[in-house]
Parts: sequence; C-alpha cells; structure tokens
Amino acid sequence: MTPIELRTESSAGKFDHHTAGYCKGHVQANLVVLPLEYAEDFKEFCRINPKPCPLLEVVGPDSHTARRLADSADLLNTIPRYLIWEKGLVTREVRTIESCYSTDLVFFLLGCSFSFEQALVESGIPLRHHQQDKNVSMFDTCIPLEPSGPFNGNMVVSMRPIRHDLVPRACLVTGRYPEVHGEPVHIGYPEMIGIKDIGNPDYGDAVEIKPDEIPVFWACGVTPQNVLAHTKLPFAITHAPGFMFVGDMLNTDFERSV
Amino acid sequence: MTPIELRTESSAGKFDHHTAGYCKGHVQANLVVLPLEYAEDFKEFCRINPKPCPLLEVVGPDSHTARRLADSADLLNTIPRYLIWEKGLVTREVRTIESCYSTDLVFFLLGCSFSFEQALVESGIPLRHHQQDKNVSMFDTCIPLEPSGPFNGNMVVSMRPIRHDLVPRACLVTGRYPEVHGEPVHIGYPEMIGIKDIGNPDYGDAVEIKPDEIPVFWACGVTPQNVLAHTKLPFAITHAPGFMFVGDMLNTDFERSV
Repeated sequence: MTPIELRTESSAGKFDHHTAGYCKGHVQANLVVLPLEYAEDFKEFCRINPKPCPLLEVVGPDSHTARRLADSADLLNTIPRYLIWEKGLVTREVRTIESCYSTDLVFFLLGCSFSFEQALVESGIPLRHHQQDKNVSMFDTCIPLEPSGPFNGNMVVSMRPIRHDLVPRACLVTGRYPEVHGEPVHIGYPEMIGIKDIGNPDYGDAVEIKPDEIPVFWACGVTPQNVLAHTKLPFAITHAPGFMFVGDMLNTDFERSV
Repeated sequence: MTPIELRTESSAGKFDHHTAGYCKGHVQANLVVLPLEYAEDFKEFCRINPKPCPLLEVVGPDSHTARRLADSADLLNTIPRYLIWEKGLVTREVRTIESCYSTDLVFFLLGCSFSFEQALVESGIPLRHHQQDKNVSMFDTCIPLEPSGPFNGNMVVSMRPIRHDLVPRACLVTGRYPEVHGEPVHIGYPEMIGIKDIGNPDYGDAVEIKPDEIPVFWACGVTPQNVLAHTKLPFAITHAPGFMFVGDMLNTDFERSV
C-alpha cells in the first residue's frame, strides 16, 4: 500500500488498523491539534523537549493540509483514528475530525519512532511487534519534561525487546535519526524510569521479552497526549496511539548524513 | 606528563602505575608479542575479531621499535609492566623484556578502550575508575571468538558504570571510535554474557555501581591474554592489564569523521 492509498482509504473509512509496518520506507508522524492561543507555548515545548517532541511540520491556522510531509494531504480525515480531548480526558475516538474543525486550529506533526524501525530491520534487528502484527508497547515514565506555558508532565516511551548482543547496534542505528526520536532514552531496567509492570503497557500492546532480550526504550510521540492529560486544556485533538499520519517523505530523508 | 615522558620514565623503571587517565588525548594500546611462526594466524585472528582485537600496528620480525603509533618508541621497555607467558600461564611480571628479545619476535599493538574514555568524559559522562584512581574492571565472558589457527577462546570485556540516562549517549560516543573497540558489546545484565559476580572482576579493580547506574561492557584488548591462556603457546609476551603502551598519536586520529 502506498501512503496516498492508505490516506485515501482512511479518509473513506476503509482503513482502521495501527500503521506500524505499513508503507515501508515512508515517514509516519504523530498529530497534535490545538487552538491558536496555545500554539506558541506548544511550539516552544517541542523545541525544548526535542527527543519526545521532534516537530516536523506545523499547519494552520486557516489550513488543514500538509505540505512538507505529504503535499496537500488533508489532516482532518487521512489518519485512521483520532482522539478528541476535553479538559484532559479523551471523550471520543473518531475516524474524522471534519465536524470539529475551525479555522483557529493549529496542527503539529511530530516525528515517530516507526520511522526508524525500517532502519533497525534492515540492519538485522528484528522487531517483535512487526512479527506478531501488534502495536508497539508504550509506557508512561517518571522522566520529567521541560515545561512551557501550560505544557508539562512526564515522557512516554515506546519499548522494543532487542536481543542483548544487538542492543548497541540498535543505539547506533537509531542515533542516525535525531528528527524521529533518535537513540534510546533508556536501556534495560524498566523500574529506573518508573515503569512498574513491563508486561502491562499504558498504550499499545504487550509483547513478549525473551530471556536473551533486553527491553529498550525510545522517546515516544505519544508524550504530548500524556501532557494533554496533565494540562487539562478545554479542547484538543490527537491521533490515537499507533494510528499515525503516514506521509510521502522517506524515512531516509531524516537520516543524518554520516 | 607527555607520552614520551611516560615512556622514558617507564624505560628507566620510574613509572610503575596503570596508565588509565595518563597522557590525556593520546592513544593507548595493548601489546601481544609472539614468535614469527604464530604471527600470520594471529593477524588473521585480529582481522576476524575486530571488536576485541583491533590491530593498530605490527612491528617485527627484526625490529622492536614502533612507527605508526609513536615514532621509534622501543617496545622492549616503554610499557610500565609486561607479562611473560609460558604454556598458557603467566610465569613472570617484569618491567622490561630486553632479556627475552630475539629477532624472530613480532609485536602486535591493539586498540584500547582507554582511547575513547576522553571522548566519554568530554561528552559529560564521568568515569568512576578515573574519579577513584583505579584500574578499569575487566571480566571474562562466554562470548565466543572466531578461531584462527591455534587462537580461540572467549571475549574479555571492560565494564564502566554509567548513569542510566547517559547510557545511549555513551553508545553513540564510543561508536565513533571503531578502531578502539567502538560501541559496547553488552549493556546491563552481566549474567547474560557469563559474568557471575560483577563486584569481582577477573582483571583490574572492582568499582562501585550506584543504584541509578547501569554496567556497560566494551570489548577489551585483554582478550588476547585470555586467548593465550587457552592456546598454551610455548612462549609469548603481553603488557600487564591496565599498564598500556602510550603512543604519540591522538585519540581523535581514530575518530570516524561524521
């Protein structure tokens, strides 16, 4: 499936699956939609927390179509699932946000770790959630973020079990992608970053960790959702965790030249 | 102290200390000295096991003075301590090998992880064994090596406790130095690589691991000594673990351009 096919099917209500492993080679992105009055504070929040919130594109106000990541893609219906937030709570999960649109909304597209998964696989590091057709495991942590205006809270991480001898390589490979979360934020000991039960993720699906594997944690673009829950803004929209915006740009476009 | 001062003091019997933290900025190297009949097999052994045995320079037969790492440095007396090996056992620890020299000996200088320690410190990652003026902790492992002729055995690793949030950075920083062991070979769980007691190193000194730190393991140039013990050659010479050859070249000469 090409990115434009996936987006077209999403907008027609025909694609309703997490996007991990789809449209191999193309960038995936997290979405945060906020009223204009919060836009500057959130932009600064992304700038000072670049690992969990790497800002790839800002759209609006007065527009809802992407330009950099995918030319003219409509951000109101091309993501498989959206969450509507009110006062820090998800009140609805929907497949289009056309009915919520107003011209003062600003759309933030943030880098996603799915973008470096292709590079991991190509370097000989298999990914359990791909093999098992699951969503990646994601966890709330105790890693604090730098605050900006109303925005503050703790980092959310994605977790991938990696065979222990491949973990250093996984660091180097993902370190080449600083715009899509880059190298891990933690390796090995879930309790050190406030994760009590590695078998019970806060978002996404649980995956098995084999005896010769180590859990490796990357900063996750679901972080802003944790921040929204903390911040209790009257209104916001995000993608649903794992159901990403799929752009036309290539993941390799985000690889740091070496 | 400059490298030439350290080597001159060593040759005069006045420097008798492990070399970690000395001559900052200059390359340090492991030494293996073998009779000519074993030289080709050992060279191949280094080629196929580049992480523990990164070959920086070969000297001899018919010479005992370095060229690449330090112009004209005499390899017979400029290392603070040498080990004499007979049939796989260390029979003597000496401060000069002039009395053992014969023209058929070949000197192998191998990269040393001390060379990337400066880069770690400069990137904001403190090293416990520097702070405590100790030798780095080194351990035998169950990680098998590729055999060549009589040479085979398991990898030896050096261990540094790193604060958990700095571990990924430590991977990236050391990954820039592939000629001096490069990125780690293992992160976190000592038992996975056959280390039973992390507080009881096989070589070097024990160091404390604090509750917010993770033990990180790099391939170590002491590996050939483990191989010599295994191979039981009639005669060989090495440096004593931690007491390295200090060259004139800079560590930054070994940094991969990015």
